[in-house]
Amino acid sequence: MTRWYEDISPGDTLPLGSHTFTQEEIIEYNLQYDNQYFHTDPELAKHSHFGSIIASGWHTALVGQRKLVDGLFAEEEKLRDEGREPGVSGPSPGINRMSFITPVRPGDTVEFELKVTDKRPSRSLPGWGLLFNRMKAVNQNGEVVYVAEFVGFTKLRDFRPTIRQRIMMWAARIPLLRKLLKR
Amino acid sequence: MTRWYEDISPGDTLPLGSHTFTQEEIIEYNLQYDNQYFHTDPELAKHSHFGSIIASGWHTALVGQRKLVDGLFAEEEKLRDEGREPGVSGPSPGINRMSFITPVRPGDTVEFELKVTDKRPSRSLPGWGLLFNRMKAVNQNGEVVYVAEFVGFTKLRDFRPTIRQRIMMWAARIPLLRKLLKR
Repeated sequence: MTRWYEDISPGDTLPLGSHTFTQEEIIEYNLQYDNQYFHTDPELAKHSHFGSIIASGWHTALVGQRKLVDGLFAEEEKLRDEGREPGVSGPSPGINRMSFITPVRPGDTVEFELKVTDKRPSRSLPGWGLLFNRMKAVNQNGEVVYVAEFVGFTKLRDFRPTIRQRIMMWAARIPLLRKLLKR
Repeated sequence: MTRWYEDISPGDTLPLGSHTFTQEEIIEYNLQYDNQYFHTDPELAKHSHFGSIIASGWHTALVGQRKLVDGLFAEEEKLRDEGREPGVSGPSPGINRMSFITPVRPGDTVEFELKVTDKRPSRSLPGWGLLFNRMKAVNQNGEVVYVAEFVGFTKLRDFRPTIRQRIMMWAARIPLLRKLLKR
């Protein structure tokens, strides 16, 4: 979400559009990153558990990530068009769970969506909040193919640091002090 | 792990080698999949939280996945060279947790390692076991940059299905019955 932490509520949803996974794309992606036969070899994959090649879960997740970033940029532009100032979203400390539920097969069209499930101010980064988002991908038959629980930083608009926070934030700019503070 | 389920024990470790993340590679990867300025724009990134561009966590994870697959293939070849029959590893139903702990910066050399943490027979797929593996990546300063808990299927060598399992496995080959069984 590119809005400020204060403007984001659990339940907010960002539709991210769809992507069709062609056989060529699946093979090309997996030759590079996940070259197991059930991702790259249509003939051998006929004898696999799935009966055809399937997209690597990583591939589905990465297409989703690109959709997500594009969606955030589009939201930012929309806010500017409306004369509103977009917030600042930061990096992600991780992903709590990624599940690949239904195989993605060549020709499948998958629809991605991000939904805010929870938020709280960050304990380690003053001025930032943590967003918990649920990524969901659904194929053309309505089957969920992939869900993931993302954690992301987003900035607070109305942040007034305490004196202690001011000192910590200033100290964190000095590499040696940053290392000490981390302990 | 490319060995049979029975031959794999918690604590088994597979070293996966290292990778140096160049600035060019980081930018190229992220222009494609995660085009946020702190991943793609060295000038703007100077003003970011990190003070330089950093690899996307996805990029680190995907380099790790490629290392993992290469490591599995190498293990398989080694087993064959020793005259042993490799096991069959299957797809992954998901990842329980992915954490990006320390940023990966241009020039960093990151060492990957997979460690088995637990295993149990699959409840949903007769003849297969579930492996719980911990992926860990450490940079040249000994800092952990990335950890993830992978779940993967691997085949049992000594599987004798019960009559009930035989019927279920046979029925699952028929698409319509498979759908009914899934419910």
